[in-house]
Amino acid sequence: MSAAPESLERLIELMARLPGLGPRSARRAVLHLLGKRGQLLLPLAEAMRDAGQNVRDCVICGNVGLADECAICADERRANGQICVVEEVSDLWAMERAGVFKGRYHVLGGTLSALDAIGPDELRIPRLVDRVASEGVTEVILALGATVDGQTTTHYIADRLPDVTVTSLAQGVPVGGELDYLDEGTISAALKARRGL
Amino acid sequence: MSAAPESLERLIELMARLPGLGPRSARRAVLHLLGKRGQLLLPLAEAMRDAGQNVRDCVICGNVGLADECAICADERRANGQICVVEEVSDLWAMERAGVFKGRYHVLGGTLSALDAIGPDELRIPRLVDRVASEGVTEVILALGATVDGQTTTHYIADRLPDVTVTSLAQGVPVGGELDYLDEGTISAALKARRGL
Repeated sequence: MSAAPESLERLIELMARLPGLGPRSARRAVLHLLGKRGQLLLPLAEAMRDAGQNVRDCVICGNVGLADECAICADERRANGQICVVEEVSDLWAMERAGVFKGRYHVLGGTLSALDAIGPDELRIPRLVDRVASEGVTEVILALGATVDGQTTTHYIADRLPDVTVTSLAQGVPVGGELDYLDEGTISAALKARRGL
Repeated sequence: MSAAPESLERLIELMARLPGLGPRSARRAVLHLLGKRGQLLLPLAEAMRDAGQNVRDCVICGNVGLADECAICADERRANGQICVVEEVSDLWAMERAGVFKGRYHVLGGTLSALDAIGPDELRIPRLVDRVASEGVTEVILALGATVDGQTTTHYIADRLPDVTVTSLAQGVPVGGELDYLDEGTISAALKARRGL
C-alpha cells in the first residue's frame, strides 16, 4: 500500500516485477515518470506496446527481432559456416558488441540444470543439432558461461555434435585484469593454457 | 549499441532513464519483459499509457490523482484544520502508509535551495500561504527532510505563517534504532528533546 491512486498502484506493482527494482524503487521510478509525462512516460508506454506487439523470437536461432527470422539469420553474409551458441539473448548482444564474430548464433534459452529440472528438450538443443546437419555448419563455438551448469551444457552439446568442429571460448585473465584480484580457478586455467611468445 | 533491433534500442534507451536503472540493467529489464510479453510487457505499457493520460497533479495540494482534486482534498472528513507540508508526493505516500495523520497535505515539490536557485516561487509556498488563509487551517505540520535545505525551508515557511500554529516532526532515535549506529547529530537532538517518563 502506498496511498497512490489505484491505477498508479497497478503501475507500481508491475514495475516492481522488473529485475533490479523492488516496491520502493518502483514507486520512485513511477513518480519520476509522472514528472516527465510527455518526454518519458508516454514514449515509454508506446515503445513497450510496440515491442510487445512486434518483437518476436527468431524461429531459427532464438534471437529477438521484428520478423520470423532475425536480422542476423536473414543476412546471407553471416552464413560463414560458424554458429556461436549462447545461453541468452543478452549474451548474443554482448558478443555483437565485441564485434569480432561474423557468423550466426544459436540462443539456447538457458543451460542444462539438474536442480531446476531443465533438460535438453527445455532448451533449443535439438534445434541446434538439426541446424548443424542442415546448414552446412563447419564450426560450433560454445560461448556458455564458465559456471558448473554452463560447462555441463558445453560438454553435453559437444557429445551431440560428433561430425563438426566444436570449440569453446578461451579461459584466462580478463583484459585489464590484475592477478591479485583473480580467483584461483581463473589463474589455474590461464596457467594451463599459457602460450609461447 | 547492443545489437538489438532498433525499436528495442529505443525502449532500452528510455528504460535506462529511470532512476535506479542504467544501460546494462535496462537491457536486462527489457529482455525480462520480452520473456513475459502477455503477463508483464503489454500490461505495463497499458498501465503507463493510462497513467500518462489520466493521472494529474491536484490543483490544491500537488498530490497526484485522477481528477483536478486528489482523493484526499476531495474527502471532507480530512478537513480537520491540519495541513501537513511535505517535499514530494513520495513523502505524502510515506505519511499515508504510517496511517496516523488524518488531515490534508501540501506538496511543495522540493525545498528551497540556493545552490540550485530554487526560491519560494519555484515551490508551492505562495499557494500554501493562500490555503492557510482561506481553508480555516489551525495547524501547519512541516514534515520536511532533516537536511540543511529542508530545515531552511522549514524556517522560511514558519516565518511566512505568523497567524497559525506551525509545528515540525520530532527529531530523535528512530524506532528500532541502536545508539551505536546513530550519528552524533541525531543523538544530540534526541538528548535535547528528552522526555520525562
